[in-house]
Amino acid sequence: MRLTVTRVVLNSRPGNNGAPVAENFRLEEATLSADLADGDVLVRTLCLSVDPYMRCRMNEDTGVDYVTPWQLSECVDGGGVGVVESSRCGLCVEGDVVTSFNWPWQTRAVIKGSVLQKVDPKLVDGHLSYFLGAVGITGLTALLGVREKGHVTKGANQTMVVSGAAGACGSIAGQIGRLDGCVRVVGICGSDEKCRALVDDLGFSAAINYRQEDVPARLTECCPNGIDVYFDNVGGSISDAVITQMNSGSHVILCGQISQYNKDVPYPPPLSEETKETLRRKNITRERFTVLNYMNQAEAALCELSQRVQSGQINVLETVVNGIENMGDAFCSMMTGGNIGKQIIKISE
Amino acid sequence: MRLTVTRVVLNSRPGNNGAPVAENFRLEEATLSADLADGDVLVRTLCLSVDPYMRCRMNEDTGVDYVTPWQLSECVDGGGVGVVESSRCGLCVEGDVVTSFNWPWQTRAVIKGSVLQKVDPKLVDGHLSYFLGAVGITGLTALLGVREKGHVTKGANQTMVVSGAAGACGSIAGQIGRLDGCVRVVGICGSDEKCRALVDDLGFSAAINYRQEDVPARLTECCPNGIDVYFDNVGGSISDAVITQMNSGSHVILCGQISQYNKDVPYPPPLSEETKETLRRKNITRERFTVLNYMNQAEAALCELSQRVQSGQINVLETVVNGIENMGDAFCSMMTGGNIGKQIIKISE
Repeated sequence: MRLTVTRVVLNSRPGNNGAPVAENFRLEEATLSADLADGDVLVRTLCLSVDPYMRCRMNEDTGVDYVTPWQLSECVDGGGVGVVESSRCGLCVEGDVVTSFNWPWQTRAVIKGSVLQKVDPKLVDGHLSYFLGAVGITGLTALLGVREKGHVTKGANQTMVVSGAAGACGSIAGQIGRLDGCVRVVGICGSDEKCRALVDDLGFSAAINYRQEDVPARLTECCPNGIDVYFDNVGGSISDAVITQMNSGSHVILCGQISQYNKDVPYPPPLSEETKETLRRKNITRERFTVLNYMNQAEAALCELSQRVQSGQINVLETVVNGIENMGDAFCSMMTGGNIGKQIIKISE
Repeated sequence: MRLTVTRVVLNSRPGNNGAPVAENFRLEEATLSADLADGDVLVRTLCLSVDPYMRCRMNEDTGVDYVTPWQLSECVDGGGVGVVESSRCGLCVEGDVVTSFNWPWQTRAVIKGSVLQKVDPKLVDGHLSYFLGAVGITGLTALLGVREKGHVTKGANQTMVVSGAAGACGSIAGQIGRLDGCVRVVGICGSDEKCRALVDDLGFSAAINYRQEDVPARLTECCPNGIDVYFDNVGGSISDAVITQMNSGSHVILCGQISQYNKDVPYPPPLSEETKETLRRKNITRERFTVLNYMNQAEAALCELSQRVQSGQINVLETVVNGIENMGDAFCSMMTGGNIGKQIIKISE
């Protein structure tokens, strides 16, 4: 039996200014054999994820060895969740919910069962898109980033600053900081609506709109005891401003540098001489955090994330659009801060 | 106000043969001021733990830098759980259940609130002694030991062997191995009753009574594909027998070496030349695992342990005795394998 599916392929790589556009992606129909080989699984896609790290997959050379480039005219892939429609793999059966980091942007797909993770919908109260965000790789990045690199200590009266704080990862990282004992968690984001969400919905102590406010002045105001932990998702001038106000012996968690991804620079992007000198003089650590190096901690951490989301200790924000035809737009919108919380694309019910 | 309490002090260190005896401990009464200083908490002890590592605390020099020796005529300490009777510390209030790794062997005590961990009885369905075992430091040692050093991989058809398998840590480690995907988990222990418990209650594939059976022959029988992971709690000749049958590129998790603790040898005890040669020739890793180096993972791991115990995926065995007057006997009994599962001493209800 053959099935007709819709998929997204890479149409072109970003142009000279580096900014991705929806036209870099192309929608097409394809046919698929539903006669499965041994070990194969036919899945129907429920939701897909778009994430900042994907920008480097649009380049011919991703610049890092843990992700591969997307190929022109080939189906794009990333985080996805779906349901098994038929299986010739012993690890899952029809009706199972499964996820993968390399899910094709395609309405249905045949995938090797061995690369799928079976997940339990009870862990997210049926809210399956959480497996791509708060109870998936994004939540793991936030929780393990804080735990591995943040040196947060209960009772130590610490202040954490999060950049990209209204994004998928930042919005969880700030809440982990609060739960782990930071007495003050300040978010930096790009709109007043995001600022309100951080404070009202996520329990941040304060929020700074970097597009409207004087970041250094507001940091001084919001962080009277300086900054002990900085969860950095953005890099660039915002990070220079934060690092300037960090305490001696404090810690930068280098999670992402979205402000630099459209530029032709290596990862992590070079710091200004002044910022390097501040790090040196104040003995501030700034260690790159790559969640894929900590996957032996995933099972326990996902359990904690699930429990904290279900108990309401962690609130989850999502921006959801419908339809595989909107993948390119959703990706480009996310790259310019169009989302609050995790950007999710619903493909089918 | 003054309170009379009963406590256990170190009466003497073990004699020349190294074996601890109940007379190394002494019970005494003491009085305690219940007028608390700022930051202090008055706790009533509910349960105490005895553990193999305590044997090295009986020596003048523990031989390792992460635990300190017990002092003659001073109150002995270790894992404990209790309830707050009054508090002048902002971190806990009357009625809270709290734990510590340095709980005095004493019926009531005044402790700095900052060294206590507040715990939620719901995590153990009210079974508070689990905070000393399966949902405490013992469970953490088992889970994190397997995850950090075991290289267990789902679908890889691996065989795990656990020594000291009916002890507090081994009984959890074997279950984690099974849950993480080992297709065969074989336990080595010291009685037929323990063997039955491993297989019938804990889901081990097979169990070997090292006091009655030919360990090498039984290992060959129980591990037809060799051994991929060895969770070692005992050391000595049992470990020599296991390592001889391990596969190339396999992994020893060096958790404890209880068979050597009464000897005057450094930790970890030296291996025989033949065993060293086997490790080298077969490229077997054998890394010491010290749970205290992984405490940034404790919160997530305890969450997973709690969930797996509550759902019945992990079964918990305990040997419980009552009364602080039995601490010394309980410790010595545990050191010679008198317990099945965690040895707990109930001090009050």
